[in-house]
Amino acid sequence: MLTIRPATIADAALIKTLITELAEYESEPDQVRITAVDIARDGFGAEPQFRVLVAEWSSEPVGFVLFFHYYSTWRGAGLYLEDLFVRPEFRRRGIGTSLLAGVARAAEGENRTFVRWTVLDWNACAVGMYRALGADFLDEWRTVLLAGEGLKKLVARDG
Amino acid sequence: MLTIRPATIADAALIKTLITELAEYESEPDQVRITAVDIARDGFGAEPQFRVLVAEWSSEPVGFVLFFHYYSTWRGAGLYLEDLFVRPEFRRRGIGTSLLAGVARAAEGENRTFVRWTVLDWNACAVGMYRALGADFLDEWRTVLLAGEGLKKLVARDG
Repeated sequence: MLTIRPATIADAALIKTLITELAEYESEPDQVRITAVDIARDGFGAEPQFRVLVAEWSSEPVGFVLFFHYYSTWRGAGLYLEDLFVRPEFRRRGIGTSLLAGVARAAEGENRTFVRWTVLDWNACAVGMYRALGADFLDEWRTVLLAGEGLKKLVARDG
Repeated sequence: MLTIRPATIADAALIKTLITELAEYESEPDQVRITAVDIARDGFGAEPQFRVLVAEWSSEPVGFVLFFHYYSTWRGAGLYLEDLFVRPEFRRRGIGTSLLAGVARAAEGENRTFVRWTVLDWNACAVGMYRALGADFLDEWRTVLLAGEGLKKLVARDG
């Protein structure tokens, strides 16, 4: 019933839809600024910046995972998982774990020794799933983001 | 007095030394598994997986920043800063901010709209510096890492 397959450029609109559904689940639907055109160009153009696996249940798309290269100065080459999503009505069937297993196999095939990602602290379901897989939670580390005016000011600083 | 310059393959041993000094500062000196050979191959080979800027004070190397591409499904293309370090005796001279400004300029030059990184929660000095620059702290997000046996089991799961 379940198939995990690499996405193609024909999936750009589907990926945009799934990204938006995930943002809605995270109560942040207005945060999605990228378009299907961005996804087609950035994921499936001359210099792909990410890869996507799509999960299908009886040929119906039900989830996705989006990931790219990461480099740790402690561990060397790894993968970073930016998004993992399964549509609510298809949860509790192991689809999320199968998508993660696809990423784990990509890591193994490229001699990348770890997969890193983030999870919302209130998402107990996901936290429990990751813990069951043997993942570590690096709770000493805070995530920092610099964008917009702050980034512009910094660019101008040493001009 | 201060120069920020892109690293070359000749800096691989220096970068390894600075990475180790940073891990010592973070009380995790045994976590550094990568070698100068790994750094030369992964950073300065056919397919560079990261870039490094070196800070020099009167031609003496005093710090570095290591970064690579990141892709956000909300914001599109950005940069991820994996390591930022200034030797203790050269702190409080704005060197860290100048290294960050170098990364901000790299982002601007490539139409990348944000820089993302993590900071140890007890590093009040760094947290204060990032806050002063206008950075956001994404404290709802927990960092997760899957490696070693957990990753191997997942690879075997759907085999």
